[in-house]
Amino acid sequence: MVIDMKKYSEMSQCELNAEFESVKAQYEALNSLQLSLDMSRGKPGSENLDLSNSLLDLVNADNGQKNIDNIDCRNYGFMDGIREIKELFGEILGVPATQVIAGGNSSLTMMFDTIAQGMTHGLGDKPWAMVENRKFLCPAPGYDRHFGITEYFGFELITIPMNSNGPDMDMVEEYVKDESVKGIWCVPKYSNPDGITYSDEVVKRFAGLKPAAKDFHIFWDNAYVVHDLYGEGDKLLNLYDECVKCGSEDMPIMFASTSKVTFPGAGVAVEAGSPNTIKMLKSRIKFQCIGPDKINQLRHARMLPNVDAVKAQMKKHAEIIRPKFDAVLCELNQTVKDTGIAHWETPKGGYFISLYVMENTAKRVEELCKNVGLTLTPAGASYPYGKDPSDSNLRIAPTLPSVDDIKTAAKVLSIAVRYAALEKMV
Amino acid sequence: MVIDMKKYSEMSQCELNAEFESVKAQYEALNSLQLSLDMSRGKPGSENLDLSNSLLDLVNADNGQKNIDNIDCRNYGFMDGIREIKELFGEILGVPATQVIAGGNSSLTMMFDTIAQGMTHGLGDKPWAMVENRKFLCPAPGYDRHFGITEYFGFELITIPMNSNGPDMDMVEEYVKDESVKGIWCVPKYSNPDGITYSDEVVKRFAGLKPAAKDFHIFWDNAYVVHDLYGEGDKLLNLYDECVKCGSEDMPIMFASTSKVTFPGAGVAVEAGSPNTIKMLKSRIKFQCIGPDKINQLRHARMLPNVDAVKAQMKKHAEIIRPKFDAVLCELNQTVKDTGIAHWETPKGGYFISLYVMENTAKRVEELCKNVGLTLTPAGASYPYGKDPSDSNLRIAPTLPSVDDIKTAAKVLSIAVRYAALEKMV
Repeated sequence: MVIDMKKYSEMSQCELNAEFESVKAQYEALNSLQLSLDMSRGKPGSENLDLSNSLLDLVNADNGQKNIDNIDCRNYGFMDGIREIKELFGEILGVPATQVIAGGNSSLTMMFDTIAQGMTHGLGDKPWAMVENRKFLCPAPGYDRHFGITEYFGFELITIPMNSNGPDMDMVEEYVKDESVKGIWCVPKYSNPDGITYSDEVVKRFAGLKPAAKDFHIFWDNAYVVHDLYGEGDKLLNLYDECVKCGSEDMPIMFASTSKVTFPGAGVAVEAGSPNTIKMLKSRIKFQCIGPDKINQLRHARMLPNVDAVKAQMKKHAEIIRPKFDAVLCELNQTVKDTGIAHWETPKGGYFISLYVMENTAKRVEELCKNVGLTLTPAGASYPYGKDPSDSNLRIAPTLPSVDDIKTAAKVLSIAVRYAALEKMV
Repeated sequence: MVIDMKKYSEMSQCELNAEFESVKAQYEALNSLQLSLDMSRGKPGSENLDLSNSLLDLVNADNGQKNIDNIDCRNYGFMDGIREIKELFGEILGVPATQVIAGGNSSLTMMFDTIAQGMTHGLGDKPWAMVENRKFLCPAPGYDRHFGITEYFGFELITIPMNSNGPDMDMVEEYVKDESVKGIWCVPKYSNPDGITYSDEVVKRFAGLKPAAKDFHIFWDNAYVVHDLYGEGDKLLNLYDECVKCGSEDMPIMFASTSKVTFPGAGVAVEAGSPNTIKMLKSRIKFQCIGPDKINQLRHARMLPNVDAVKAQMKKHAEIIRPKFDAVLCELNQTVKDTGIAHWETPKGGYFISLYVMENTAKRVEELCKNVGLTLTPAGASYPYGKDPSDSNLRIAPTLPSVDDIKTAAKVLSIAVRYAALEKMV
């Protein structure tokens, strides 16, 4: 343990050598632990999953399979889902229920399908397949699977730096002057991975965008909209309301899901937008789908009849996840902070801690961890094309392992972060 | 009731007049019944749905949410589904389990997504969006939603007549010489709506196709693969085996689902093909989806652990549906057959009866039925662009109403078929 640490940058070469020897010894000692730990994936742990087991009993042979509108949820039809789910998520996302489409278990699939629709039929202008130099804005670090979708569809990915209040809006406003820029990926609350919630000003500037492309869309993935870890958590301004004020209500397409509320492998996803947007999405969905899994929607409606029930559920999740976040943050604060070689956000919710280690050492930290049995998300994964220009960001996912394992993993991480820095400095 | 009927074509004008007066009187009498019947939709009735209610209790809080491979089905991952479902449908479709992808609740969505992939990324050649005069073969009458998908994606729909043993293969073999022909829709067993099962010869000729387009695919929608109504039902030759013999195993993409085995609104769908085909499909799915609803797959695996369990379930369905088919066929045989103005297939399974009324009267029959309270599938719906060139085909869907209602509906239908013919003849 390193206590009363001097900043590495203020150490003499001799002090650095001694520190490196000490850290090296700590690192070597890790080998004997024969660890097998994984902080790479934003998956809930089984304790979190257990919180929703009652979901599985809420629609059964005896208790009726009809929803509030007397729809037999076992049969075909109702391509935009059942009313209960549309009402619940309408309230969560701040739009009328009629402007919500409730689908299957993956909001990522809804995003993919929407981009695919843009490619073949356009989203308000000609098909994107016909736009040769199509571009998509990617606030980074961000969600690798977002970037993956637009890369798959042949967009040039434009990196937008993330500030502490959201994406760099000066840059966004500049880029949207280019008609070939067709959209932007956003995780506006507890962003993946930084855990940043966009400020009111950022949301307002999004609503006020005047893109050259009339089919520019904001892909507003509100994946962590109810995923507070500390008390009431951050407040996010309602983008849709702001857009209505600006007359830009057709610009955002909003997404959410119960993936980390109930079960990632058996949840319900939704998308929402203006009446025009919903009409446009349904013009495709009516060919793609006769109806989503309405029985699973009914299960969710019974378990989560209103927003208060969602909040109560999320409090239980927070009680399990918070100590895991605390364990990582505590270790970093105790053993890394004073060295001055790394910094990180302290998110009030979400699923990740975003750690910025010394430039050009993130890949090395990943490797050092791997060699003693700790798997991290590959360095660079949170950047377009998987390439972090500074090689400094690491996405830490502390939700899946136990608290004890997280404590151990955090120690390993801390040692590796210092090791990699000292290697460069001595 | 018309007994010992002469063929209408053999009646004198005087006899036709008398017959028309009689049928007219029968039709007028229907008004007093104030009917509200619907034979328009291929939906199971609630008795059929009840057969699967136990499904809802098979994964619950107490009995474990892990599959045979110890996968926690509640969590993320496994984009091609769980092993049990792949094994079950591998056996049903006649391919190894490793060549099956198990997805969400809709095989139609899988078909749409596959065509969409062809549009943006191609299915073995350049993206179809770049093929200006792309065409798709549509055996007709056929499934309107198939035709709808390819129409949505801008294909020219080429009608292929259906013979009693399957599509007109002379015409198929001729059309595939055109490189812009990219695929064909097939419902090879109990075809929608004719209820025809493709003969061995037709299946072999499909396997032996030598299309000019190297990315030509057979969309083999085996929607009714286990949906026998009378005893063992029809036997369909295994297309994949035949393709392997011909070296054309990358040509078919096969689909099936539990929609009419368990719940249309909460079932499991699969797609299958050669190792190359599966690899090609997964190259898209890995961007589109983190994993399907594995809990629902696990439910199905527990309810339907093997093909025998599926067969037992389908026998129960048949016992409910068979009397409904019988009611329609019996009425047609008693009151329409001898008139010589209409003909129909007598399917051994599936969901529809395909009725061919006198040319240029199908729309009129639909209207006559509608006016006395019986809704039929719109005439022409089973043809590309919704246009039946002969205006003679009606798709009868007898599964949803009760047997008593079906009996009444069949009488109405019979009267309307004769009415419409006589109107033209007198």
